[in-house]
Amino acid sequence: MQTVKPRLHSDQYATGILSGDRVMLGQAITLIESNLENDKVLSAELLEKLMPHTGNSLRLGITGAPGVGKSTFIEAFGKYVTDQGKKIAVLTIDPSSQITKGSILGDKTRMEELSKNPMAFIRPTASGNILGGVSNKTREVLLLCEASGYSVIIIETVGVGQTEVNVKHMVDFFLLLMLAGAGDELQGIKKGIMEMTDAMVITKADGDNMDHATRAQAEYQHALHLFPASASGWQPRVITASSLTGKGIDAVWKMIIEYQNLTTTSGFLKQNRSAQQVAWLNEYFDQLLKSDFHRLQNFQSTLKNMERDVAEQKLSAYAAAQILLKALYENLKSVIG
Amino acid sequence: MQTVKPRLHSDQYATGILSGDRVMLGQAITLIESNLENDKVLSAELLEKLMPHTGNSLRLGITGAPGVGKSTFIEAFGKYVTDQGKKIAVLTIDPSSQITKGSILGDKTRMEELSKNPMAFIRPTASGNILGGVSNKTREVLLLCEASGYSVIIIETVGVGQTEVNVKHMVDFFLLLMLAGAGDELQGIKKGIMEMTDAMVITKADGDNMDHATRAQAEYQHALHLFPASASGWQPRVITASSLTGKGIDAVWKMIIEYQNLTTTSGFLKQNRSAQQVAWLNEYFDQLLKSDFHRLQNFQSTLKNMERDVAEQKLSAYAAAQILLKALYENLKSVIG
Repeated sequence: MQTVKPRLHSDQYATGILSGDRVMLGQAITLIESNLENDKVLSAELLEKLMPHTGNSLRLGITGAPGVGKSTFIEAFGKYVTDQGKKIAVLTIDPSSQITKGSILGDKTRMEELSKNPMAFIRPTASGNILGGVSNKTREVLLLCEASGYSVIIIETVGVGQTEVNVKHMVDFFLLLMLAGAGDELQGIKKGIMEMTDAMVITKADGDNMDHATRAQAEYQHALHLFPASASGWQPRVITASSLTGKGIDAVWKMIIEYQNLTTTSGFLKQNRSAQQVAWLNEYFDQLLKSDFHRLQNFQSTLKNMERDVAEQKLSAYAAAQILLKALYENLKSVIG
Repeated sequence: MQTVKPRLHSDQYATGILSGDRVMLGQAITLIESNLENDKVLSAELLEKLMPHTGNSLRLGITGAPGVGKSTFIEAFGKYVTDQGKKIAVLTIDPSSQITKGSILGDKTRMEELSKNPMAFIRPTASGNILGGVSNKTREVLLLCEASGYSVIIIETVGVGQTEVNVKHMVDFFLLLMLAGAGDELQGIKKGIMEMTDAMVITKADGDNMDHATRAQAEYQHALHLFPASASGWQPRVITASSLTGKGIDAVWKMIIEYQNLTTTSGFLKQNRSAQQVAWLNEYFDQLLKSDFHRLQNFQSTLKNMERDVAEQKLSAYAAAQILLKALYENLKSVIG
């Protein structure tokens, strides 16, 4: 049973967020992530009020397989960024878990230093499951953090699922963390991620591991040169870094700033964000539609039958799709008629 | 103005196709590609009759940037395959052109030898434009060719657009043709294609170009080793080949057969095809829906307004999607009410 806190007026949330009130930001995120109908209306209201105050952050995607040292890297990187007077927000997406009190605490423990830093804000977000009606609100959470004055926003994922492709479409710069060891550690990373990275960071480049890391850097740099060019005109780079010694953390930051300058001057950054916004619109629209369709029981049972017949090659996908559309319209009459 | 030939009964098409009648196959493809309502009904009927006779070919995707030598490679490869007593069909997808008499002739001229070979069937197919109502029927054309006894089917694309991702989902094995010259020639290839290839063939590996090709082979082989593993368990390979001397063509064929044996034994080939079928169903369904939506004028004008507001950051994608869904349902009443 979901217990619901009494909600405030959207103006109150907006004022709190714009003034940088962390508690209010946290409560507004909970509101945005809620699937209650009233909350959705309130969320939309709040977002409209905040929209003019969004867009001013550097949006970073960071991914890497479990064990690569994402949390310690983000701790070190976060410290570096906040030391320069910039507020940083870290949104972690864990596809395997819904948000529970446990995982929030778990996550804060993971980044112990950063979670105590008043310039940093750490928050896990649900990866979402649109068919079940829970949709991913990471994009809106990002907008809320921007409105609240966070000038660097990291979206962190584990690199093993579909999530990364979505994250790529939310961010300006996409960073893949890798361990030295040539190939093996990539087993956990989903296909297609390497080609969409703007940079790779070889982590744990310290002590005995230094040689390995430098060799891996050269190998990956060479491999990335063989890849097709990015639409941004940016040539992906490989950097070695150590969260332990701090080596390379500044190089990562400088590289990202260089990217930001390059793509701001060329106009790519702005174009890319506009295109992302329109893509979000289409994706949300599809999600809303599918979520409505999910409630149509006759349509759902036809869908299951069609999927089975098509998988068993009893029916062509082409014919099945037409049967399915007919079933949808028949069933939809009851909803919109 | 489209002129329409009188159609036959679906049984007549089916009998002709199953007996290997090329003229009948050609006419049936024209039928399948038609967007006239009556033709769609007839196409669905025909496909149902042919379904039990499909699935017996090796489905190959071949892509490469313009100038890489796709046509000459397919000519040499096609000759090799037909010399072994196997019938081959080549379906070429040109995203830049609709099907016209011109492009059909143009394509046949491109593969002059193969087009005269009675064991080969060459056919360009439209890349499709679902919003305009023309949908890509390459999958159905593939099924028709299978039913007509073609045991190797090549789907050829130019590697520069979205088409390749779709083709990957139609085929068992995906081949990327590359010219030696390390990197530069990849400029024309879309991001993500390298990571989804099962093999690369370095073309024009003959004469003075031999050294270049061998070096490129080593480089790409190394790069591919750094990629995440395929779900199939197959490690992508790089082969050098010359359409001029015929060198390497047999190696390509043997590799594909090895892949087929491996994935047949492991069950991956079958699983992958089942998953592809279900994905087609969902894609076709989405296409049909969008094609219907495209005809709803009020919805379309709201969509344009929302896209503009969202791109200009006047409205959040989240709120715009909700407005759009309301507009859709209001407008849809007239269609299904």
